[in-house]
Amino acid sequence: MSRIITIAREFGSGGRELGRRLAGYMSVAYYDNEIITDIAEKSGLAEEYVNSIVENRIISYYPITIGQTFSGTINPQLDLNTKIYVEQSNIIKAMAAKSDCVIIGRCSDYILRDFRPINIFVCADMEAKMRRCRERAQEGEEYTDSELRNRIQTVDKNRAKYYKFFTGRRWGDIHDYDLCINTSDKPIEEIVKPVADLIASMFEFRT
Amino acid sequence: MSRIITIAREFGSGGRELGRRLAGYMSVAYYDNEIITDIAEKSGLAEEYVNSIVENRIISYYPITIGQTFSGTINPQLDLNTKIYVEQSNIIKAMAAKSDCVIIGRCSDYILRDFRPINIFVCADMEAKMRRCRERAQEGEEYTDSELRNRIQTVDKNRAKYYKFFTGRRWGDIHDYDLCINTSDKPIEEIVKPVADLIASMFEFRT
Repeated sequence: MSRIITIAREFGSGGRELGRRLAGYMSVAYYDNEIITDIAEKSGLAEEYVNSIVENRIISYYPITIGQTFSGTINPQLDLNTKIYVEQSNIIKAMAAKSDCVIIGRCSDYILRDFRPINIFVCADMEAKMRRCRERAQEGEEYTDSELRNRIQTVDKNRAKYYKFFTGRRWGDIHDYDLCINTSDKPIEEIVKPVADLIASMFEFRT
Repeated sequence: MSRIITIAREFGSGGRELGRRLAGYMSVAYYDNEIITDIAEKSGLAEEYVNSIVENRIISYYPITIGQTFSGTINPQLDLNTKIYVEQSNIIKAMAAKSDCVIIGRCSDYILRDFRPINIFVCADMEAKMRRCRERAQEGEEYTDSELRNRIQTVDKNRAKYYKFFTGRRWGDIHDYDLCINTSDKPIEEIVKPVADLIASMFEFRT
């Protein structure tokens, strides 16, 4: 069975960078935006639109599970959300079946539970997340502190809602991850090797 | 400044074993029951009694903070809880000031926040915790599955309440720890070295 690492991450925590560096260090495939590109190709929807659905709030308030029948759905937006989630699940499973890899976000820990991945959650203090966002801001991006804080909170709230909606779980609950790492005062590049070694030791005993 | 590692742990998760092994591997002091013994000595109370207070539910429902005046307290049990907590804080700070060490539980992450410790939370799935408890059961200890599950839940609920009461924080909230480790299918002795290496890399950048 492939060795799969999934990384859920708070916005601005550096989780994506950690994932990319881990994949490089471990010489395994890395999937992030590729998932969105694949969904867009297979569904015929624009990448930007798929991304907005995957990153944004679910337009409904009752939980659903994969495999449930949606023929009776009367909300076309919900129907589309679900179709995209099913497509996403198929793509993520196909990626995981192909080779060892690191997959960022998109409920991959839940979708791949039968693959027995090592699941990681990356978080950071608000101050650290704001600092990181500022360092990586694109030209012309000028948020006040309060706007930036709101943006970070909104993105994470939406990720939590999306995750809850499709998995029934609380995003960031320690019991659903093998490892939660707080990157607040840690340069990502410096923790890659020890995190990779710890992951390797965890795989040793995963049957 | 000393290098301090605090370990909060769910009952049956192996957090205490991890802490003991980490201290051994890193050749630093290890404090666990020593704290209770010290409190008992300094307060003149029986060790068993101190332990029952530290591990059990706080008899009150409003939060308090250290340093507050309790001269007006009319609940003698609450007064005693608080005195023990203050004594515990002093002892833990004295231990941390003395040398590098690993300290198990007892709100030490919060008490030592000015020491900038590396804080670890250790959890596990209920099945794994039950298995571990059975392996370590003392002779004559015969819980049914349901009794054992209840016992584990009760101990952890009490730890969470105690922690909340004295720190105002939610026990097991990922943001308050540098690292959360789920030990469910991992032999503790096998993850000691990589966890120690990761901790060492985290200390490198802690100023």
